Amino acid sequence: MRVLGIDPGLVNMGWGVIVVDGSRISHVANGIVRSGAASLAARLCDLHRGLAAVIAAHAPDAAAVEQTFVNKDAVGTLKLGQARGVALLAPAQAGIEVGEYAPNAVKKAIVGVGHAQKQQVEHMVRLVLPGVDLAGPDAADALAIAICHARHLQSRVLRIKVVA
Amino acid sequence: MRVLGIDPGLVNMGWGVIVVDGSRISHVANGIVRSGAASLAARLCDLHRGLAAVIAAHAPDAAAVEQTFVNKDAVGTLKLGQARGVALLAPAQAGIEVGEYAPNAVKKAIVGVGHAQKQQVEHMVRLVLPGVDLAGPDAADALAIAICHARHLQSRVLRIKVVA
Repeated sequence: MRVLGIDPGLVNMGWGVIVVDGSRISHVANGIVRSGAASLAARLCDLHRGLAAVIAAHAPDAAAVEQTFVNKDAVGTLKLGQARGVALLAPAQAGIEVGEYAPNAVKKAIVGVGHAQKQQVEHMVRLVLPGVDLAGPDAADALAIAICHARHLQSRVLRIKVVA
Repeated sequence: MRVLGIDPGLVNMGWGVIVVDGSRISHVANGIVRSGAASLAARLCDLHRGLAAVIAAHAPDAAAVEQTFVNKDAVGTLKLGQARGVALLAPAQAGIEVGEYAPNAVKKAIVGVGHAQKQQVEHMVRLVLPGVDLAGPDAADALAIAICHARHLQSRVLRIKVVA
């Protein structure tokens, strides 16, 4: 099963794809979609085109997007919301179910604590995916989201097995 | 010239298309794209599909989207931001330039004052577009945005003529 993680942002949209095989998790690819256009609408267009290309290239079976902080300033929340709309839309259009995780839930799943530093998250991503070449901090976050979703899906399968 | 106005919303996305011929403005169509899906991602998918269908059916030359209030609660701002991302994306993907107007700018262009009531806006939309059959308040707002953008484009043409 291939899982796509997306770290939404209006300028840099981080993405990462992993393969989950039972309890084994391995790296497929990661990168950053950059929007260089002048207008907001054209930027969203760039981001959508880039994400659609990633989905077409790596054919994920599941996707997850980080939930945006809403306790920042309102203008920042709105901007991020617009980018997040595109991040949710692209996989949904490809028929892929999209999970959503709060930043603290991602940190807890990766590092073990919800208030972990960004560096700790990157460190754990490198431990889980040995030898991974990270395109940048946004791509590391995207892989963390994918790992978080993979673990959530694994525990769901286990729960179903225990119940059945 | 056909102008599409969009009033972004996560549940109801109002839209309206007008034709501008010199100083004459007339109504083409208006409606509401509704998202009935269970998940946020699927809702955004519904909204995008609906807007893309409106654009394909009415082939607008220009589009405008209302700027979202950012002074409400953060969760509301984020939700609206996501819907707004899709509202900006759909026309941009069709190669249409998208204008953005603050709610007060729309009210001022339509009613003459920035603090006009919703009913006043609807009243003026009915005056500008006699006999119009409105699909609902969101569609009336969308037509107001289209009229605001049309007047902005007209005054730009006038300014260019005066300068030239």
